[in-house]
Amino acid sequence: MDKKNVIWHDGYVERQERNRYFNHKSGLLLLTGLSASGKSTIAHYIERELFNQNAHVYVLDGDNIRHGLNSNLSFSREDRRENLRRIVEVSKLFVDAGMLVLAAFIFPYREDREYMRKRFEGDNFLEIYVKCPIEICEMRDPKGQYKKARAGIIKGYTGIDSPYDEPKKPDLIIDTEKTDIKNAGQMVIQLLNDRKYLSLD
Amino acid sequence: MDKKNVIWHDGYVERQERNRYFNHKSGLLLLTGLSASGKSTIAHYIERELFNQNAHVYVLDGDNIRHGLNSNLSFSREDRRENLRRIVEVSKLFVDAGMLVLAAFIFPYREDREYMRKRFEGDNFLEIYVKCPIEICEMRDPKGQYKKARAGIIKGYTGIDSPYDEPKKPDLIIDTEKTDIKNAGQMVIQLLNDRKYLSLD
Repeated sequence: MDKKNVIWHDGYVERQERNRYFNHKSGLLLLTGLSASGKSTIAHYIERELFNQNAHVYVLDGDNIRHGLNSNLSFSREDRRENLRRIVEVSKLFVDAGMLVLAAFIFPYREDREYMRKRFEGDNFLEIYVKCPIEICEMRDPKGQYKKARAGIIKGYTGIDSPYDEPKKPDLIIDTEKTDIKNAGQMVIQLLNDRKYLSLD
Repeated sequence: MDKKNVIWHDGYVERQERNRYFNHKSGLLLLTGLSASGKSTIAHYIERELFNQNAHVYVLDGDNIRHGLNSNLSFSREDRRENLRRIVEVSKLFVDAGMLVLAAFIFPYREDREYMRKRFEGDNFLEIYVKCPIEICEMRDPKGQYKKARAGIIKGYTGIDSPYDEPKKPDLIIDTEKTDIKNAGQMVIQLLNDRKYLSLD
């Protein structure tokens, strides 16, 4: 059995083979921006578009991460780091499994986003800045979080009493004050085409 | 944008749609058993077989979990619980993404495996007991861990000075003392067929 082990290890289904099968590169697309800037909305729009084009894609965001894998983490700086680390590691598994991961998270600190990029060694990580003025985000406020932050009920809320470091050189900027969802989605798909993620033929 | 949000949420690509696309159910197959019983070997054999049949499948085991997501956990009882919890939550994400997850882990405690089954609500969790006498596992000892455990260099090693609760009613038992890898793989694929995981047509 031990000798066979070696043979079967050679038989592992590697990422490159999965990429060929799905006919697209796997990688991590981070959508970063303020709360209510439109990150998850855009991510799910792209998910649908790419799925309909037979790509294998999955969205990670607060909805499926904070209630599951990271439900035992607070919003302290230390726990935010662990939150980030786990999201990176889970994304690496998905990327290894041949998928395009759309990660929609605020990630307000530049150093956190740089950590992400480094862990992916550059070539299968794209940073998309979902840009929107804080005033517009506050007007949208779908979960009433901004209101609570202004009232001091929530402390350390990004954009209110906690900073958001704007990306200096993101791979793409989507201004959701001016761009509608369809255009936003097309911009991301264009980026994926430009970077030769889609269609390996 | 807020109103659109609702529409896009309806457009999410759900597990059922992914299952139809891949033409198989998604779910978690746990391969439990002693160290060196053959869990990962069997898992990777099935991975190859199913990938060649166009199924979308991924292996989680010590190799990709302990060095990544769970690299900050020890082998204390508390950390073992957190190890289990994270593996369950990551598996749930993969299952939601439409995949068959092959999880090859010792998981020596019955209560841990029951926790897993409960988190998956039964219908997309299968427990496969990779059975092998400890004497055979010790002879194989590919990483020299049993030798170290016998010498007292490693403490609390499953099967040596820490218990392994045999599964009482696993979905399948594979006796790797008597069964070769090809047969083992076929047994698992037969189980998946019997339980109607493969081919939804």
